[in-house]
This record gives sequence, C-alpha cells and structure tokens, in this order.
Amino acid sequence: MGASILSDFGAEILIPVCAVIGIAFSLVQWVLVSKVKLSPGRESVNNGSGAKNGYSDYLIEEEGLNDHSVVLKCAEIQSAISEGATSFLFTEYQYVGIFMVAFAILIFIFLGSVEGFSSKSQPCTYDKSKICKPALATAAFSTISFLLGAITSVVSGFLGMKIATYANARTTLEARKGVGKAFITAFRSGAVMGFLLAANGLLVLYIAINLFKLYYGDDWSGLFEAITGYGLGGSSMALFGRVGGGIYTKAADVGADLVGKVERNIPEDDPRNPAVIADNVGDNVGDIAGMGFDLFGSYAESSCAALVVASISSFGINHELTPMLYPLIISSVGIIVCLITTLFATDFFEIKAVKEIEPSLKWQLIISTALMTNGIGIVSWIALPSSFTIFNFGDQKAVKNWQLFLCVAVGLWAGLIIGFVTEYYTSNAYSPVQDVADSCRTGAATNSCIIPIFAIAISIFVSFSFAAMYGIAVAALGMLSTIATGLAIDAYGPISDNAGGIAEMAGMSHRIRERTDALDAAGNTTAAIGKGFAIGSAALVSLALFGAFVSRAAISTVDVLTPKVFIGLLVGAMLPYWFSAMTMKSVGSAALKMVEEVRRQFNTIPGLMEGTTKPDYATCVKISTDASIKEMIPPGALVMLTPLVVGIFFGVETLSGVLAGSLVSGVQIAISASNTGGAWDNAKKYIEAGASPHAKSLGPKGSDPHKAAVIGDTIGDPLKDTSGPSLNILIKLMAVESLVFAPFFATHGGLLFKLF
Amino acid sequence: MGASILSDFGAEILIPVCAVIGIAFSLVQWVLVSKVKLSPGRESVNNGSGAKNGYSDYLIEEEGLNDHSVVLKCAEIQSAISEGATSFLFTEYQYVGIFMVAFAILIFIFLGSVEGFSSKSQPCTYDKSKICKPALATAAFSTISFLLGAITSVVSGFLGMKIATYANARTTLEARKGVGKAFITAFRSGAVMGFLLAANGLLVLYIAINLFKLYYGDDWSGLFEAITGYGLGGSSMALFGRVGGGIYTKAADVGADLVGKVERNIPEDDPRNPAVIADNVGDNVGDIAGMGFDLFGSYAESSCAALVVASISSFGINHELTPMLYPLIISSVGIIVCLITTLFATDFFEIKAVKEIEPSLKWQLIISTALMTNGIGIVSWIALPSSFTIFNFGDQKAVKNWQLFLCVAVGLWAGLIIGFVTEYYTSNAYSPVQDVADSCRTGAATNSCIIPIFAIAISIFVSFSFAAMYGIAVAALGMLSTIATGLAIDAYGPISDNAGGIAEMAGMSHRIRERTDALDAAGNTTAAIGKGFAIGSAALVSLALFGAFVSRAAISTVDVLTPKVFIGLLVGAMLPYWFSAMTMKSVGSAALKMVEEVRRQFNTIPGLMEGTTKPDYATCVKISTDASIKEMIPPGALVMLTPLVVGIFFGVETLSGVLAGSLVSGVQIAISASNTGGAWDNAKKYIEAGASPHAKSLGPKGSDPHKAAVIGDTIGDPLKDTSGPSLNILIKLMAVESLVFAPFFATHGGLLFKLF
Repeated sequence: MGASILSDFGAEILIPVCAVIGIAFSLVQWVLVSKVKLSPGRESVNNGSGAKNGYSDYLIEEEGLNDHSVVLKCAEIQSAISEGATSFLFTEYQYVGIFMVAFAILIFIFLGSVEGFSSKSQPCTYDKSKICKPALATAAFSTISFLLGAITSVVSGFLGMKIATYANARTTLEARKGVGKAFITAFRSGAVMGFLLAANGLLVLYIAINLFKLYYGDDWSGLFEAITGYGLGGSSMALFGRVGGGIYTKAADVGADLVGKVERNIPEDDPRNPAVIADNVGDNVGDIAGMGFDLFGSYAESSCAALVVASISSFGINHELTPMLYPLIISSVGIIVCLITTLFATDFFEIKAVKEIEPSLKWQLIISTALMTNGIGIVSWIALPSSFTIFNFGDQKAVKNWQLFLCVAVGLWAGLIIGFVTEYYTSNAYSPVQDVADSCRTGAATNSCIIPIFAIAISIFVSFSFAAMYGIAVAALGMLSTIATGLAIDAYGPISDNAGGIAEMAGMSHRIRERTDALDAAGNTTAAIGKGFAIGSAALVSLALFGAFVSRAAISTVDVLTPKVFIGLLVGAMLPYWFSAMTMKSVGSAALKMVEEVRRQFNTIPGLMEGTTKPDYATCVKISTDASIKEMIPPGALVMLTPLVVGIFFGVETLSGVLAGSLVSGVQIAISASNTGGAWDNAKKYIEAGASPHAKSLGPKGSDPHKAAVIGDTIGDPLKDTSGPSLNILIKLMAVESLVFAPFFATHGGLLFKLF
Repeated sequence: MGASILSDFGAEILIPVCAVIGIAFSLVQWVLVSKVKLSPGRESVNNGSGAKNGYSDYLIEEEGLNDHSVVLKCAEIQSAISEGATSFLFTEYQYVGIFMVAFAILIFIFLGSVEGFSSKSQPCTYDKSKICKPALATAAFSTISFLLGAITSVVSGFLGMKIATYANARTTLEARKGVGKAFITAFRSGAVMGFLLAANGLLVLYIAINLFKLYYGDDWSGLFEAITGYGLGGSSMALFGRVGGGIYTKAADVGADLVGKVERNIPEDDPRNPAVIADNVGDNVGDIAGMGFDLFGSYAESSCAALVVASISSFGINHELTPMLYPLIISSVGIIVCLITTLFATDFFEIKAVKEIEPSLKWQLIISTALMTNGIGIVSWIALPSSFTIFNFGDQKAVKNWQLFLCVAVGLWAGLIIGFVTEYYTSNAYSPVQDVADSCRTGAATNSCIIPIFAIAISIFVSFSFAAMYGIAVAALGMLSTIATGLAIDAYGPISDNAGGIAEMAGMSHRIRERTDALDAAGNTTAAIGKGFAIGSAALVSLALFGAFVSRAAISTVDVLTPKVFIGLLVGAMLPYWFSAMTMKSVGSAALKMVEEVRRQFNTIPGLMEGTTKPDYATCVKISTDASIKEMIPPGALVMLTPLVVGIFFGVETLSGVLAGSLVSGVQIAISASNTGGAWDNAKKYIEAGASPHAKSLGPKGSDPHKAAVIGDTIGDPLKDTSGPSLNILIKLMAVESLVFAPFFATHGGLLFKLF
C-alpha cells in the first residue's frame, strides 16, 4: 500500500490556494474587460447624441469611430439586454427559490424517515461492526449540501451572465479597432465565467467537506453520502437553467425570425423588430447561463460520485485524506492548467486575421488537454499511494496509481475526440454539412453518433476495468478538468453573437458587422464542440452516479434478465424521446406567443416599420420569460418525478433499469439532436454565404434548397439548443436524484411489488 | 402436474389439418379473384384496341365501362408491373442464393467446430448425466432448417407478390362497378398472401420437426436447438426483403416525384413518367413482399424461441408432445380464427360507401383479436397440463396453464393497442397529424412512442413474471397469432395503391380514381397499424430470442454493472442510429440514380412530354433493382456481421449487452421513424385535400406550410418505409443469429479478452 507523497496538510493547502488563484484570475480578466469604456467619457455622458469630445485614443482604423451617438446607442442596447437577462433570472429564481425550499424539505423528510427520524447512531451500512451517524444527520447534512450546491450554481450562473451582458457591447466597440481586439475582449469575458465557476465550485465543495467533517469525524462514508446533496443541488439548478433558458432562447429566436425575416422581410437583429432584444437576452440566458449550470452540475456530480465511492474504498476506510481528496486535487490542477492555456489566447499570441480565430480556439482545447495530461500524471503520482483498493459492488478491487492515471487521462482525451468529431459533423468546412445542404438529408448528422459513442465506450471500458465505478467518476472528472477553458470558449460564442446584434442595432458599418460575424462563426463551431463535451461528460457522470446509486441502494447486480430491470430499461430508453417531444412542444408554444405579440406590435404601433417609433421590447422580454418558465414545468416534472415515482412504486431494481436505459438511449439522442441541429443550421448558412461553387449552385436565398434548409433549421434549432442539451440534464439529474434518495427507496420503495 | 386433455395424436393431426385448411382457403380466394376477367374476352383478345363485343355483364354504373381498349391497357400495365417485380425478385434471389449457400456453410463450420467436428455423442448441455447427439448433428440439422426457413420465406414472399400484381388491375376494373366490389377484390388478394404465408410457415415447421425427430428421438433439446435455424433462415431473407425492397420502393418513389411532380409538373402516376412503373413495382416488392418476409421471420423466430425454451422445460424433459407443440397449436387455431374473420369482410357484410372501408378494416382487427382470445383460452385449457415448469436461466419455474393463457393474451391485446395508437398518431382524422400540419413539428410523432412502449413493457412484465422467457416467446406468438388477417389488411393497401396508379395510367375516369383513392387512403392507415404490429412483435420476439441465446450460451446473469456488458449496451443502443443513417443514405443514392435517368429520358426522348412516345420503363426498373441490391449491402453487412464480430472478439457477455441495447433503442427509433414518417405524409395529404377549414387555412398546394410538409415528407417517406421497418429486422436478426451461433461463441468466442 504505502502512503501518498503529498501530505494531508499539503493537500488541504493546495486545493483552496488553486481555487483562490482561479477566482483572482477571473477578477483580473474582468478588470481588463472593464477597461473598454462604454461611455463616451465622463463629461459627455449627459450631452445626448452627436456630441464629440475628442476621445481619440481608440480611433485606429475607421472613420467616424468616435461617433458618440454610436457609443451611447451601444450602451443603451447593452443595458436593455442586461436588464432583460437579469429580469429573466430573477423571475426564474423566484420559482427556483420555491422549488429549492420544497425539495429541501422533501430530502429531509425522505432521508430522515429511513430510520424513522431516530437521532441515535446506527451500525454502518458497509461495515456493521462499526457505529455510524444516524440517518437523521445524513438527512440534515444532505439538505444543507443540496442548498449549498444550488446556491453556488445560481450565483455562478448569475455572475457569468452578468459579465457576458457586460462584455457584449464592449466587444462591438473593440471590433472597430480590429478583429484581434474584439476577440480578446470576448474571450476574456468568457474566461471570467469559466474560472469563476470552476473555482467557486471547488472552493465551496472543499469548505463544505471540511465543515461537515467537524460533525462526522471518522465516519467518512456518512460524510460523503451527505455531500452528494451538493451534486443534486447543482444539477437541479441546471434543469431550470438548461430547460428554461433553452425554451427562452428559441422562443425569442423563432418568434423574431418568423415575423421579422419571413413576414416583414427585415434583416436579422433589426432594431425595428420588437423581439430583437429578447432574442439577444436568450443567447445569454440559454447558451451562457444554461451551459454554465449544466457543466457546473456535471462537475459537482462527478466529484460527489468519486468521493462517495472513495469513502467506502481503502482511502475512506483507512482515512487517507490526500488520496480521498484526489478528485478535488485534479480539479485544482485543472484550474492552473487552464490559466496557463488562457494566456496562449490572450497574451502569448495575437489574432491578426479572421481566419486565425477558429484555429486559436481549437488550440485552446489541444493545449489544455496536453498540459492537463501532465498535470494528471503528477497528481496521480504524488497524491495517490502506489496501490490501494476500490469498492466494487461488494468487493474491494486492487488498483495501482498508474491505472487511475489512465482512467482520468482516457476521459480527458475522449472529451477532445468527441469535441473534434462534433466539429467535423457540424462545421460547414467539411463534407457532412455540405451533404446535408445538398438534400436536407439527416444521414450525416445521424452518423455522427458512431465515433463519440465508441470514444465513450472505450473510456468506460478502460476506467471501469481498472477501477470500477471510481474509475468512471474520475474519467468524467478528467473530461471536466479543463472546464474553465471549455466554458471560456463556450461563453465566447454568445458574447460575439450579441456583439454582432448590437453592431447591427446601433447602425454600425458593414465592416464592423463582418468582424463580429467572423467571431460568431467561430463561436458556432466551438459551441458544437462544447455541446459534445457536455454530452460526453454527462454520459460518464451519469454512469458513475448510477454506480454509486447501486452501491448505496445495496444492489449487487443489475440483471437485464429479470422482468423488473428489463421493463425499466425499455421505459428508460423511451424517456429521452418523451422528454424531447415535451421540450420541442414547449418551444413551439412559447414561440407562438412571441409571434402573436410581434405581429400585434407591427400591426398596432404606427411608424414602427418606418423606424420612427421604437417597439415595445420589454413586453417581448416578459412574454419570453413567462412562457419559458411556464413551459418548462412539464418536462421538468418528468425528470424530477420519474426517479421518485419509479423508486417509490417499483423499487430500486426497476429504477436501475430506468437509469441504464435512459442513459444509453439519451446519449445517442443528445448527440444526434445537437449534431443534426448544428448541421442543418450550418447547411443554411453555407447556402446563404455561397462561398464555394458548390454552395453557389444551391443558392441564392429563396431557392428551393435554401428554403428546405430554412425549414430544416426551424426544427434543427430547438433540437440543438433546447432538446439536445436538456437531455444531459435528464440523464444526470435522474441519476443523482436516485443516488441521494437511494437509502429511502431501498427501505420504503417498491410499494407496488410489496402489495401484489 | 397431470397430462393435457388433447392427446399427442390429436395434436399431431390438428396442426397439419389447420395448415391445409389455411392453404385451401387461400387458393379459394385466389380463384375468386381470378374470376375478374382481365382480357376483353377470348374472341377479342387479338382484335387490338377499340374492339367492342358486347361483354356487358359488368356494365353496371358507368358509361363506356366495357371499352376494351381500357381493359387491354390495364392488362398491359399490370403485366409491366408484374414483370418488373418478378425481375427484381429474381435478381435479388441470385444474390440471396449465393448468400444462402455461403451462410449455410458458415453455420455448418462454426457449429460443427464446437466439439471439433466430432461425430460422437456427448453429455447433454443441460443434464450432464444424459447423452445427447453430437454438435456435428446440430450443425448439420441447423443448416438444413436454415435452408428450409429461407426457402419457405422466399416462396411465400414470391407467391404473395405474384397475387398482388395479379390483383391490382383487377381491382381497378372492379372499381368501375363500385367501391364494394373493388374492396373485396383487393382484400381477397391480400388474404391469399396472408393465409399462404401463415399456413406454409406452420406446415413446413411441423414437417421439419417430425422429420428431425426421426434422427433425434428422445433428445428434444438437441432437436429444437437445430430447429432454431428455421428462424434464422426466415429472418435473413427478411433482411433482403425489407432493406432491399425498402430501398427499391423509395428510390423509385422519390425519383418519380422529384422529376415528375416537381420539375415537370405532371401528376402522380402519369404514364409519361419513366419511373412510374418502377414506382408501382416498388409498392409490391417493398410493402407486400417486404412485410411478408418480415412477419414470416417474426413468426418463425418466436415459434423457435418458444420451442427451444420448452425443450429444456418440463414439456421437453418429460417428453409431453402436446404441450411441447403448444406454440404451433396456437398458430393453427389462429389460422381458423382468421378464416372466420375474413368472412366478415368479404361475405357477411358488404361495403356500400367509401366511409365504410376504414371501419371495416379496423373491425377485422377487433374481431380477430376477440375471437383469438377465446381460441387461446381453449388451446391453453386442452393442450397444457394444469401445471408445469419452465426453464428460467438455470432454475425451473412452476407455471399454471391459466398463467400461460395470460401471457399469450397480453401479447395479442398489446398488438391491438399498439395498432390503434399508431393509427391515432398517423391518421389525419386526429389532432397529432393536424398539429404536424400546423408547423411541420416533430413533437406529435415523437410522443407516439409512449403508449406502445408501455404496452410492450406491460406485456413483457406480465409474461416474463409468469413464465420467464417462454412467456415472452408465447406473448410474441399471441401478437402474431392473427398474422393472416394482419397481412391481408396490410397487403390490401399497396394493391389498392397500384389499382389507383393503373386507373390513372389507363386514362380511366375521375370517378374510378376517386374510388381507388378511397381504398388507398384506408390502406395507408392500416399500413401504419401493420407497422405497429410488426415493431411490437419484433420487440417481443427479440427479447425471447435474447433469452434463449442467454440460456444456450450458458450465461446466468447479464449484469449491466460489468464493463463488458455496459459497453455492449451503449454500443448496441447506437447501432439502430448507424443502421438508420446507412439506409437513409442508401435511399438517397439510389434515388439520385433514378432522378438522373428520368431527367435523361425527358431530355432525350422526343415527344415524351407530349405523350406521343412511350418512355423506357424497363431501364428505370433495372436501375431501381440494381441500385437497391447494391445499396443494401452496407446496412445488411452491419446487421449480419455485428453479432459475429462481437461474439468472436468480445464474447457472449458483450454480445448480450449489444442485443439488449439495440433492442431497447431500436424499438423506440422504429416506432418513432414509422410514426414521424406517417404523420408527415398524412400532414401533406391533409393540407392537399383541404377538407376542413383548418386544412384550407394551411393550403393550397404551393403555400409555405404545404412546401414545408412536402419537404418533411421527403425525409419522412424513407424513414417510415425503409429505415423504420428495417430496424425490426436489425433487432430480430441479430438476436436469432446470436442464438444459432451461441454454442460457438460460448466455446471459441471472446478472443480479444482471452488474448489480453
């Protein structure tokens, strides 16, 4: 066995230091972004439009750059977007607040009832000879960690969105100076979100563990069971963020396009369109806050899954603190690695031309993965004993430290592979999208499951074989270890998209718009990569949680050849379809309301089409907000209630089947939905751009292939931005919820079978 | 225990008698159809067009009915269709022949190698104290039964298609007398196919069992293991029929429509379109022969799965012949029940108006199900001992006869429910299709999985709980027990469709076309119901085969929590996506070739558009034939090779995972593809027909919603007619292939894991 090289004290110091560095770095980035001034200067703020007062330091490339009316207009639009986004989040948080309280009570009651609310200590689950803390304590601490996870998630999402809406107009203004400056502004803002989220998540988890330890003392399995609530908290917020945000963004987008582009024939992002602000708000709440919530949830869940399994392995049994905290140390090193990686994009190199943007973003992924591989190697060498044992459904399995290194590394690299395959299938630089453009076919996109699934399967096989469910959990952590960079790249996209919208609305020149469009195009591709990551990690995380659930529910096999499990598997495999249908329907209903409002405004507000009167943006924002929150209830209820209903009425075996079924089927649908949607979207753009002879032969706008692509996009858009990403939440949340409630289901569940 | 009421001798008599009655009934129907004369009378056959000689007996409703030129034209078109279909099947059979011989050799070698080609008797697999026939005998008899299954399937499919192409023009001619007469002709022809297939399948299986018994004697488990080859034979032909036929029909259809309807603006089924004959041929080879192959495969497989499990249950161990033959007795009674049911449509009631057609077809399903429930009750009462034991993965499970009755009945009724749900989601009389028409949404169709999956899950739970895998197998048989009626209804559709095409091509009056269109519309709905049945039964059959495979491979649990099984599950769930992408791509490539040929003919043949020259139909038929056979190779190879590759390299555990994964995921995709396609197709028709104010608001032809629906249909059509139905074959064939090769995989498989 032997101890690890890194002392317990060293580990206890290393983690918070890295987290604090991450937070500090994120603040530095914020300061750098804030240096771009959005006001025309203190003296002229109240001068109204048209005032010029010689702030010529950023007059570099274009004439009329310093037109203060433009700057003021940008500031005004930005504040409208920011207000809309804040108003959505606050409205959402009211419901979230009610949900959080209600669910916290539910957790406490259900888990407390396991031992009939007794406050006496009990024999431990995994070692009956020892005495563990009572179930009532687990109930109380699970509830606390649930609330901690939820609040951390909400705060991180909120801050990320704030910086995004703070940075979009600044990116527009920087675009006047050149594409490189605009890129750096957008990317730095993304980094604020990425580092804040990764570091906050780590720090809060670290603090919670140390505080809980004051009560639990040596009962580590009880301690880390209670910590799983943190994952549930993070993930249930992701449900609101992803599903609500997804519905919001597509309702606004589809509503704006259907009336504006199709009926009224005005360009995208035209300020005359009443839904245009809502559309821009949607990018922030859907793509930025939603993605942040999602990845934070994955991160919290995989950490919890790893910790709970470790606590009943030799790390926990022998109270070896450093190896116990291995998952957190990996994440700590990840923050440092991502910090270095970020400097490559913002400081070591400079973007000079449009064509350098996309490679620069891709290099971010490659650099972070390469550096992190070394980081994992070092951590595995110093933080782990050379050999140890891992709990494996009843047995203890002997594992070497290099094997655990391979588990983490295989997850990390699988993420990269999935990302690049996704890009291949959704970028219009390659043949799959061109094929789709040819005939509006779905084939290419459907095909795109194959390599990602094999990559996930190989990761699972390697990590499962080496270190059972712990291996899966750390593989997921490996994939998420570069989360700060991943999120930075991801958030960069919607910021650029918004910047383009602001340029259009502020009436800036064609040249500016071209630059922001180039930023946006690169962002679309990286958004697809980000989605690939999110799905891949969701698959691994869910499996790890599933494994932890099975261990905690004291099931030793999940045998497909029993009717209880098989029907669970079959129905579980159906859930993602049901859920997708619900979310697609929700987007449809919400978009319909938006369409009616936009039509109403065009019909009743005189001078709107002529541009002499301003539309009523706020009503559209309100409609999107209300509709999205109302429409997210049915799909949200499906996800939250399924584990409870199945667990209570059918018991843990059927629930295992449901989890396995929804996992294997949900992953495919999520990949397929994201890539089909991405491919259709880019096929449309490919035809519209008409950059190659092939693309020209299919165009111009209004041709039959173009129309087919536009229709494909109206289905593809909600598929890729609402249904697909929400499926991640479906599979993860059902698994973590089952894990938290496992003792309750094991004790009181399966009512139907008990009755008959 | 106690013996069954029906004696062994009685059972041995009952089965062939019912089968012969079925064949006789089918011949009677053929004779009745043939009474409709397709020649203008013996004297005038050589008189050429325009000759009238007073055959006025069928001059009932319309003027000019007896115009001999019309009759001759119909006969001519019919013979072109019939020739095209025959030529396709014969071309296909050449490849099928090569495949059959090659695969037969493979079976013999693989199974023979299990005991190193030893011809000595060995201890039995399930009871080591007894001596069983050598593996070499199993190899030889499996090969024989494989060939028997394949040949029976091929012959039944061929005959069914022959009668269909024999009946289409006759239906057109009868439509002159009224819709009732036309209905009866089309329905009787469908019945010929249905009864021939059901009765032939039963008879050949019965004879094979009795002949094999001469060699095997008391070694029933060896005997019925060898019989499983029959299922594999039937099912592998279904691969050719469904996939090849599916590609053929959609390539011709899409090719004909894209150039004819869209580019040249000529109506559907216009004789000037060079692909029109190929299109009509496609309906026969895809929908009639394909569906026949598919359901015959299911029937053969579920019988084999039931028999192989029964042979190692108390029936087999105690050599109780009557209960052993219970699956065949169910099918025998099914033939009689369907015979009575058919009389309700053709003799007891008469169709007088168009609106009576659809109810009449639906009543067929209800009547057959209601009667069959009684039939199952009687058979379960007289053919089974009151209690017995069923093999359940190593144990013997005690079962009562009423429990087995419930297993069969639950399958039967689940089929009916799935059928009616499918109809609800794809018929334009209900809101789901109208919703799709509203916005080209996919929601409604995706939703349509929910009830069928619950119906299948409940059937599985009930039958699995009562009688383990035997229960599942007989539930599948229950669903298929009314196969003769199901097929009759199903074949009726394409016959009516063809009849309409012939009326159009022969230049018959609008009134005739209206009648055939009404027949066709009812056929579309019932085709959707038929597909629902096919999918539901495929799910049950595959599970039964999967169970039999697991038993034969001597695995006792398929634990999701082992890496080998889980990666199998994940990759298995991906296979249906891969397969769908392949088949969609195949249809695309084949259609492209057709489009080029049709364009070429329109451009180079002078007078074609004016109708003065005839197009070259034969070249189009040849293109469809060649393309479909070439394009079916990649998806076919995926299905046939996956079990072999996985079994040989990864072993039986991973293969179990793959089978379970592809089963649970494939069922959903199949239902979803069929219903999405059906809903899109009918949404298009709903808008085109413009029968309600709502439909009018979306129309007319050429409006934006209509165009969206047309584009939806170009994806939906191959989804519902090629990809969806082919997925049945994917899941069944992989399972039966695994079952047949199970001893080989168990002995020599898993090379990769053995090496590392």
